[in-house]
Amino acid sequence: MKKHITILGSTGSIGISTLQVIEQFPERFQIVGLAAQQNIDRLEKQIRQFHPPIVAVADESRAQELRQRCSDVVVEILTGEQGVIAAATHPEVDLVVSAIVGFAGLIPTYHAVLADKQIALANKETLIVAGDLIVPEVRKRGLSLLPVDSEHNAIFQSLQGHRASNIHKILLTCSGGPFRTYSQEQLQSVSVEDALRHPNWAMGQKITIDSATLMNKGLEVIEAHWLFDVDFPEIEVVVHPQSLVHSMVEYVDGSIISQMGVPDMKIPIGYALAYPDRLNLNVPSLNLPKIGALTFEKPDDEKFPCLRHGYEAGTIGGTMPAVLNAANEVAVDLFLRRKISFMDIPRTIEAVMGQHDVKPVTSLDVLLKTDTWARKQARNFSLHHKKRTVSLSQE
Amino acid sequence: MKKHITILGSTGSIGISTLQVIEQFPERFQIVGLAAQQNIDRLEKQIRQFHPPIVAVADESRAQELRQRCSDVVVEILTGEQGVIAAATHPEVDLVVSAIVGFAGLIPTYHAVLADKQIALANKETLIVAGDLIVPEVRKRGLSLLPVDSEHNAIFQSLQGHRASNIHKILLTCSGGPFRTYSQEQLQSVSVEDALRHPNWAMGQKITIDSATLMNKGLEVIEAHWLFDVDFPEIEVVVHPQSLVHSMVEYVDGSIISQMGVPDMKIPIGYALAYPDRLNLNVPSLNLPKIGALTFEKPDDEKFPCLRHGYEAGTIGGTMPAVLNAANEVAVDLFLRRKISFMDIPRTIEAVMGQHDVKPVTSLDVLLKTDTWARKQARNFSLHHKKRTVSLSQE
Repeated sequence: MKKHITILGSTGSIGISTLQVIEQFPERFQIVGLAAQQNIDRLEKQIRQFHPPIVAVADESRAQELRQRCSDVVVEILTGEQGVIAAATHPEVDLVVSAIVGFAGLIPTYHAVLADKQIALANKETLIVAGDLIVPEVRKRGLSLLPVDSEHNAIFQSLQGHRASNIHKILLTCSGGPFRTYSQEQLQSVSVEDALRHPNWAMGQKITIDSATLMNKGLEVIEAHWLFDVDFPEIEVVVHPQSLVHSMVEYVDGSIISQMGVPDMKIPIGYALAYPDRLNLNVPSLNLPKIGALTFEKPDDEKFPCLRHGYEAGTIGGTMPAVLNAANEVAVDLFLRRKISFMDIPRTIEAVMGQHDVKPVTSLDVLLKTDTWARKQARNFSLHHKKRTVSLSQE
Repeated sequence: MKKHITILGSTGSIGISTLQVIEQFPERFQIVGLAAQQNIDRLEKQIRQFHPPIVAVADESRAQELRQRCSDVVVEILTGEQGVIAAATHPEVDLVVSAIVGFAGLIPTYHAVLADKQIALANKETLIVAGDLIVPEVRKRGLSLLPVDSEHNAIFQSLQGHRASNIHKILLTCSGGPFRTYSQEQLQSVSVEDALRHPNWAMGQKITIDSATLMNKGLEVIEAHWLFDVDFPEIEVVVHPQSLVHSMVEYVDGSIISQMGVPDMKIPIGYALAYPDRLNLNVPSLNLPKIGALTFEKPDDEKFPCLRHGYEAGTIGGTMPAVLNAANEVAVDLFLRRKISFMDIPRTIEAVMGQHDVKPVTSLDVLLKTDTWARKQARNFSLHHKKRTVSLSQE
């Protein structure tokens, strides 16, 4: 029996890697649906290679163009949010790979859960923003939420065959980012170019900046809380610059179980696709004697306050993680557009969190409103802060 | 329901650690039997603390003395091999901790298997010498063979929840011993005192010398083969001087799962006792940032030929591992008594293996005869070799 799969975000980095794994194992997997924002050049190639019966393009005019280009192919091309949801909830689908980036990935993932699909989760907002809504549905329905992120996938692997009641703590590893060894002073003058150079992984711009501020790790702490049902004091971040130990679990007897491997997203993707089986992926072995040393450090949340903000937002709960996420997205965007400095990113987040009146997450609507509010506040703060900084420097 | 336990070798290092774990969890474990060679001082204390209904002392006169000392206690004190077997096969026993050192530990362990007991295995000869006899019985009866040795316990932990069919290779870690960085020349003049200083673990003399020659690792390769049903080319030794990663399993997808922890035998013992649960042992956490670096190297089997001899004997199979084991025991004993040099240990093993006519292991009797033959050959070789060396140096 083949596993029937929809990929939400098939033209992005995770989507492409997922299809690279799937094309190696045509006897195991069948693509049912593909969804993308607008990259129809790549989508057309994917349609011709994987023959999905259903495709969704969020952008209406791009959908129309793709329909014309694929007039010789048997494929239903839908559009808009409803189109993406249709691809995610198609009756034939067993597993949905949720890899649309940002808030937009949350809604179809939520619908996939409500339609009893297994989820291979790469979209971060699903849990960070909407954990309160989605996790109870996942548990109630007995579904699997298979993490695709290398760290959470490592934790998931390290939990197999061991009892959740025996967990002492989760050890979430962190590369430390490109500025691990920078001083407070050096961090003040980090440029966009500096920040886009990640030492170990090739990723999109937003996530690369998040890795540099350690916001990525602050967000992953919240995800780990939801995925593995552990409280925040039981989640510890350990800096591991080589990014080869992808994360660890410490048990009550002092045993630490970890998963290591070369930094190749095909490994966690393959595990999520084939779980509980593993795929012979032909990725290189990790040659530990050749590598020589794996090193570990404590993270410095004075230098990297975003890490602390992740713990704070997660611990407060309710709508606060949604505020953290939205304020960070706006701040990163402003940094990439050279409107604010690198260290203004945590300042913006802290300011917006400080202004927020936390509410319980009772619906997607509450989250959408919170998101809109936080984005506006973040833009305002950055603007005013900038003005103030400018006027101060002019004094 | 308490787990009912017999400890074979209760006054040795593993036996004592096992009782330290058990005394922390009186609600979980009940001692049914204790067996020891002759240390009746310690045995008396253990009887008064753990109230076992049955005790075996291999030495007849010591058994008699213990009976007199314990005349105020309700306990049956047996003697000889039959007494040890009775303690191992007592109907109330669920789990036998097999921790008698050497060939003497093999026979009661074999009888415990035939009586359908679960085995927590610390005795090395059980698998190295008699794997051919014992493993088929264990599999046929659906018993667990729970390894107590830290490396095999780590592999066992790293296999939980994953499929045996997905194993790519076993990565057996090795401290490298105290002479890891020695040159060939330096190894020629290693003294007994040098060899008895192990960097990471406090152990008995025999096993400390085995760690220095890497024979310990050569023997563990054979044990790993039997415990985990893997062929010798799929077992790789990795030198890891800190002895914190206790071993690893690499899977076909490139994932490596490992178990780490402080070097405290209570961790593997506790896991074997409580499996599949874990005990809150109050051992210190492994503080990776404080440790800083975990390092890895390739082993050098030119400098440490015993490692190679382990692979060779295991690959040849039949009675050859019994020859390896017996020749090594004699050679280590001669070294400790300053009759031969450190590098004469592998020379003796190689010579005796070279003289052996391999037979299939069809009975314990075949093994006993092989053992006797190999010990005699080892003593002869060492004697003649010594003479030759002496006469050469007199020329």
